[in-house]
Amino acid sequence: MKLLRYALDDTVHIGILNGGEILRLGLGDMTELMAGDAAFAETGLLDDLAEARVLPPLQPSKILAIGRNYAEHARELDNEVPAEPLVFAVMPSAVIGAGAVIEWESELTQQVDWEGELAVIIGKTARRVSQADALDYVFGYTIANDVSARDLQTRDKQWTRAKGLDTFCPLGPVVVTADEIPDPQNLRIVTAVDGVEKQNGSTADMIFSVSFLIAHLSRAFTLNPGDIILTGTPSGVGKAMNPPEFLGVGSVVSIKIEGIGKLTNSCRVL
Amino acid sequence: MKLLRYALDDTVHIGILNGGEILRLGLGDMTELMAGDAAFAETGLLDDLAEARVLPPLQPSKILAIGRNYAEHARELDNEVPAEPLVFAVMPSAVIGAGAVIEWESELTQQVDWEGELAVIIGKTARRVSQADALDYVFGYTIANDVSARDLQTRDKQWTRAKGLDTFCPLGPVVVTADEIPDPQNLRIVTAVDGVEKQNGSTADMIFSVSFLIAHLSRAFTLNPGDIILTGTPSGVGKAMNPPEFLGVGSVVSIKIEGIGKLTNSCRVL
Repeated sequence: MKLLRYALDDTVHIGILNGGEILRLGLGDMTELMAGDAAFAETGLLDDLAEARVLPPLQPSKILAIGRNYAEHARELDNEVPAEPLVFAVMPSAVIGAGAVIEWESELTQQVDWEGELAVIIGKTARRVSQADALDYVFGYTIANDVSARDLQTRDKQWTRAKGLDTFCPLGPVVVTADEIPDPQNLRIVTAVDGVEKQNGSTADMIFSVSFLIAHLSRAFTLNPGDIILTGTPSGVGKAMNPPEFLGVGSVVSIKIEGIGKLTNSCRVL
Repeated sequence: MKLLRYALDDTVHIGILNGGEILRLGLGDMTELMAGDAAFAETGLLDDLAEARVLPPLQPSKILAIGRNYAEHARELDNEVPAEPLVFAVMPSAVIGAGAVIEWESELTQQVDWEGELAVIIGKTARRVSQADALDYVFGYTIANDVSARDLQTRDKQWTRAKGLDTFCPLGPVVVTADEIPDPQNLRIVTAVDGVEKQNGSTADMIFSVSFLIAHLSRAFTLNPGDIILTGTPSGVGKAMNPPEFLGVGSVVSIKIEGIGKLTNSCRVL
C-alpha cells in the first residue's frame, strides 16, 4: 500500500495512492494511523492526485541518519569505511514534502549537495531490539534527500547545521508499507540533477543493513512511532565530482527508489 | 512564575509552584500553555508538592545544544575557544525529569560525565530573528544536565549518541517564565556530585549570550514553541579532573541555578 499525506481544500488527509487517484482514509495523521487498524477506515471518497498538494508523509520526533554507509561513497570523499555506523541527527524542522523547494541563504552556504537515501519509518516503539526482530518495527519506507551544506559540514565539524538547515530534508512522496518491501536490501536508487543521472546504486551495497541499523540505534535511543532512519547515500554526490558540482538557483533534484517512487524538489537561493 | 509539570493520581497537570504547594492550572501541556493566555486559567485547586511526581517540563520537538560556550571549560578539555557557536543536537527521547534516573549500559559507555547548563525554552516560532529581539521569543528557563558519554564522544566524532542516549537529558524541575529572569547572563550555576561541588560558574561567562545564540540558531533552523537551547557548561566536568572522574552506580548529580532551583538525578548502570 502506498500512503500519501496531502492537502485538498485546506484540509489535510491521508489516502492510499492508486495511479492518479487517492482513496481517502478517515484521518490526517500518519502516527495515528500507525497506532491502530481502525485508522485504516476507508471513507469511500476518491480524490484526484492532480488536485492534491503532496505534504511530507509525517512529522518525525527524531531523524537519525547514517554517514558513509556505502563503501564507494565513503571512498569518493576520501573517508575511511566505518567499522560501526556513523550516527548523526537531522532536525525535524528541516522536513519538506515532494515538490516543495529546497532553499538556503548564500551567506550561510555555497556548497549545497544532494544525497539520495532510503528512509525507514519506525512503526512501533523500539528499544534494544535484536537484528532478527528489527524489521517487525518498520512501518514503511520512503525516499529522502539528505541535503548537505558541505562548507558548513567541514567548518562546523558537528553536522547539525550542515544537515539540518530548514528545507534540507525532503521526504516522500509516499510511504510504502513494509509488507510491500520484504527485503529492503535489494532496491535500486537513482538520483538525477536537472535530468542528468548522478547516483545509481543499490541498497544491497549498504555496509550496515536496515535491520542492523535498527538494532544498533535502538540500543542507544528509544525509537518512537514516526521516527525516521536515513540509511546513507550511494556514491555520486556533487562534492566528489571533478570539479565539484553543487546545487544552485533552479536546480531540480529527483531521487527514484525501486518500488517506492520518485521524490523531486527544486532549489532556490535566498 | 515557576511552572511545574507533574503527575498526581495518574493524571498529568501543570501548575504554579509556590513553596510546597502547587496551584493547578487547567491543562497538562506546556506548549498549549505557551500558545495562549486563556491556558493560564487557574482551577482554584491546590496540590501538595510532596505528593506530586515531577515530570519533565515539556517534550521538545528539538534540542539544540552549544559546545564550549564557557572559555574555561573549552580550555580544561584542551579545546580551542570557538569563533562561532559549536552547535549540536540532543535527541528529544533523552529527556527525563527531576528525580528520574540517569542510566546506561556499561557495555556502551564507561565514561559518563555531568554538564550543568542553563536551558532556554522557546515560546513562539523564531526564524531569522535579530539579537535585539531574540529574548522576546523566550518562554522561560530551566536547568539541564547535558550528560555526556566521553568515550562515545571521542570515538563517534559526531556527538549524537554520546549526548543523546536515553535518560541523558535531565530537565527541570520547574520552568521559570522569562519575566522573572530579565537578564539570563548573570546567574550562578553550581553542580555537585554526591554533595561535592564540581562546577561553580556564572552565565556571565558565556562566550555567546542567550540572545546571540537564539539569533544565530534561528538563522539555520526554525525554532518552534517548546524547542530547547542548552547553552553550554562551565568548567569542572569530570573528564577534566586529575585523575578523571565519572558517574557510577548510585551517583547523585545536583545542579543549582540562581533564580530557578535545583535539578537532582541519581544514576544506575544497566
